[in-house]
Amino acid sequence: MSKGLDHDTLNENVKKVQYAVRGELYLRASELQKEGKKIIFTNVGNPHALGQKPLSFPRQVVALCQAPFLLDDPNVGLVFPADAIARAKHYLSLTSGGLGAYSDSRGLPGIRKEVADFIERRDGYPSDPELIFLTDGASKGVMQMLNTIIRGEKDGILVPVPQYPLYSAAISLYGGSLVPYYLEESANWGLDVNNLRQSIAQARSRGITVKAMVIINPGNPTGQCLSIDNLQELLRFCSREKLVLLADEVYQQNIYQDQRPFISARKVLLDMGTPISKDVQLVSFHTVSKGYWGECGQRGGYFEMTNIPAESVDEIYKVASISLSPNVPGQIFLGLMVNPPKPGDISYQKFVQESKTILESLRKRAHIMTNGFNSCRNVVCNFTEGAMYSFPQIRLPPKAIEAAKMAGKVPDVYYCLKLLEATGISTVPGSGFGQKDGVFHLRTTILPAEEDMPAIMDSFKKFNDGFMEQYEDHRGYSRM
Amino acid sequence: MSKGLDHDTLNENVKKVQYAVRGELYLRASELQKEGKKIIFTNVGNPHALGQKPLSFPRQVVALCQAPFLLDDPNVGLVFPADAIARAKHYLSLTSGGLGAYSDSRGLPGIRKEVADFIERRDGYPSDPELIFLTDGASKGVMQMLNTIIRGEKDGILVPVPQYPLYSAAISLYGGSLVPYYLEESANWGLDVNNLRQSIAQARSRGITVKAMVIINPGNPTGQCLSIDNLQELLRFCSREKLVLLADEVYQQNIYQDQRPFISARKVLLDMGTPISKDVQLVSFHTVSKGYWGECGQRGGYFEMTNIPAESVDEIYKVASISLSPNVPGQIFLGLMVNPPKPGDISYQKFVQESKTILESLRKRAHIMTNGFNSCRNVVCNFTEGAMYSFPQIRLPPKAIEAAKMAGKVPDVYYCLKLLEATGISTVPGSGFGQKDGVFHLRTTILPAEEDMPAIMDSFKKFNDGFMEQYEDHRGYSRM
Repeated sequence: MSKGLDHDTLNENVKKVQYAVRGELYLRASELQKEGKKIIFTNVGNPHALGQKPLSFPRQVVALCQAPFLLDDPNVGLVFPADAIARAKHYLSLTSGGLGAYSDSRGLPGIRKEVADFIERRDGYPSDPELIFLTDGASKGVMQMLNTIIRGEKDGILVPVPQYPLYSAAISLYGGSLVPYYLEESANWGLDVNNLRQSIAQARSRGITVKAMVIINPGNPTGQCLSIDNLQELLRFCSREKLVLLADEVYQQNIYQDQRPFISARKVLLDMGTPISKDVQLVSFHTVSKGYWGECGQRGGYFEMTNIPAESVDEIYKVASISLSPNVPGQIFLGLMVNPPKPGDISYQKFVQESKTILESLRKRAHIMTNGFNSCRNVVCNFTEGAMYSFPQIRLPPKAIEAAKMAGKVPDVYYCLKLLEATGISTVPGSGFGQKDGVFHLRTTILPAEEDMPAIMDSFKKFNDGFMEQYEDHRGYSRM
Repeated sequence: MSKGLDHDTLNENVKKVQYAVRGELYLRASELQKEGKKIIFTNVGNPHALGQKPLSFPRQVVALCQAPFLLDDPNVGLVFPADAIARAKHYLSLTSGGLGAYSDSRGLPGIRKEVADFIERRDGYPSDPELIFLTDGASKGVMQMLNTIIRGEKDGILVPVPQYPLYSAAISLYGGSLVPYYLEESANWGLDVNNLRQSIAQARSRGITVKAMVIINPGNPTGQCLSIDNLQELLRFCSREKLVLLADEVYQQNIYQDQRPFISARKVLLDMGTPISKDVQLVSFHTVSKGYWGECGQRGGYFEMTNIPAESVDEIYKVASISLSPNVPGQIFLGLMVNPPKPGDISYQKFVQESKTILESLRKRAHIMTNGFNSCRNVVCNFTEGAMYSFPQIRLPPKAIEAAKMAGKVPDVYYCLKLLEATGISTVPGSGFGQKDGVFHLRTTILPAEEDMPAIMDSFKKFNDGFMEQYEDHRGYSRM
């Protein structure tokens, strides 16, 4: 008889989960690192791990909140600027018990108010703090929402392919069905509503009730920014099909072109006016982990609900209560993100300088990387319009595909493992995100330091071109 | 046609969840607070919210980790002691990217090693850091483990009654069956293995596969400390019945008597020797939220696995990866908890003084509260041997029960609401934790400040005795 945690008795949904971002490639990279090899971890959007410095002002504020006794120390002004001290006092006044006390399970009311004000400034419509829940990073919010929506395997969630594997993993974990819709690589990863219609029709023919649709804007791993027209089309689609729209907008500050600035799904929805603006159920996600903040390790995020019935909000609140509260320091980072220093504040110039430097450098790196990939043999890559990733297509020769099969590997996994062993560059194979059959990609972040980037791209090109040389049938005959 | 987040289409398991600690009483208390009433929140074990001061040393270290640029500031020594500076450098050396970078999904390896060393010192047996996972508070770990174990409604988990409602809530959420075993109030909430046998037999007769058993030691809400004999008995029971033992040991530092010090389930298991020490699957939970730390808002915790097959550990790791990593500041608090200042360190005396003061005061408050409750009409209360709660039995007169029915309330909810309205004391009704039929309790924390305690207990007594006066049939006739 098996025991409760023997592998054969585990929850099948747990076993079905796949999570490539920390999958085989990551595990192999960790092993190689232990063996002393220098690894460039570009598998996760984790900017500080690759040398990005934290913004000073928010760190000063949170440090003071952690050590409130410093606020009474006569020397505090020697190491902290006055506006950081004032802001720390502000946040401590919003808590009862400081960072060591659980907050309300939705997060501190004062910080939810700051988030609501930020959303109002961004979208031009008021936002209700009671419909904003703070979370330990955006992922936790997405997981809670999927757990709330999914009743069983007959419930489907429309997810873009390629997608960030949080979605496939969480849908597996909660026992639902992923309904894929394909982004069009040849149209710079655009979203085609006809494609959505086909996907939903196909799912329904299999008896699936499609309950929600995920968009990632800017795209992960694909980097595209959705246009207003595109957002309007898909909101009409959600309205017609009664779908909850889950809008993953965690990269809204990461934009590397000027033609298509970020616009939130909520703003587009409310701009469309009634009846649709009162009709579509929308949940929007944001985080302190991305943008020019990159404060991944702090785990701060929020979701905002639009047009969700009050009794459903109550259920979501109840479930959030089970784990008591999101971490409070992360909540304060979120407050600081939505309410940064203002012109005239002592720390304003420095804050602007630091954030601008990061964003401008990311923009340059997006270009260096796209250009670098496009200079490689059998590699084509759309420009990274936003987010933090590059997702080049790798045209693997048949012999490479065959070699992968012999090694018992998916072809892009084979390629990425070889890349890792040869160069130390740790990427994620495209199969982890989903791709059309017979087409192969990899995802890398654009986060290595700008000064390291040329060498990394050289190293990639050398490996790739050698790999292609090895496997390509360049002598003009092909295997039959 | 319903939309995806309409209440009628939500996941039924979500709707079934009950979580009394932040249930009707808490919501009403929050309303009253908004209206300006002074509320004493004793519903959650949230010490800092009730005025407990954080320990200085850990806060200094984490503040410095948040603001690493201070480490190069010539003035840093004016506001931080040298050992805090050294320790901050130590923790930063364990991360790549500081607090802003995601760690490994199990937590930072260096901190897991510190936890393993702590466990070894505590239990006298080595512990493997690879089997220790850091979490955003202990609750998140418990939830992950239950989600891993539970396949569906035919899977049962043995849970003590009264229990901390995290267990009932998470079991509902993941669609399993709670199998209750009753603690014996008349034997100071002791655990009787015969009782366990009956519970499991009864569950099996209903077709339930019982996969795991929860113990909370010291007990929440009941405060009892399990003896070695008791732990041995239940470990033998788990071995015989092939149950995973989930040992919630978050109150291991909160002990208010000397006859029965805390002893971990793991130590008792390993002391028993083979074959049983290699047989029972055990998962033990701990946290920075309790003890004399009370750092609830930081969300730091861990679980340690004993005798869990490697392939199951891999599945647990994979699922932990979906939300990337527990918050890093919380991990550092955990490191500091298991590796506090040592004799000879600059901060040692102060640290010992602060922690001793808190623990001694908690011990006094445990006595004041138990005595206070036992001085009240129709109230009997076991002494709080450990943890942070008092769980008095309230003998409600039939007329009070009838009045509750008229008001559409469970009797203990009715009593607690009246208590709240009259005194501002926010408790949790016993029905939220489970109790035998026809017996009523409430749970309160022992956390209000020591100097406020006499007034609170007076206020309680005044309310209670008046309530009993009102509803008790003291003129000698009874309703038929």
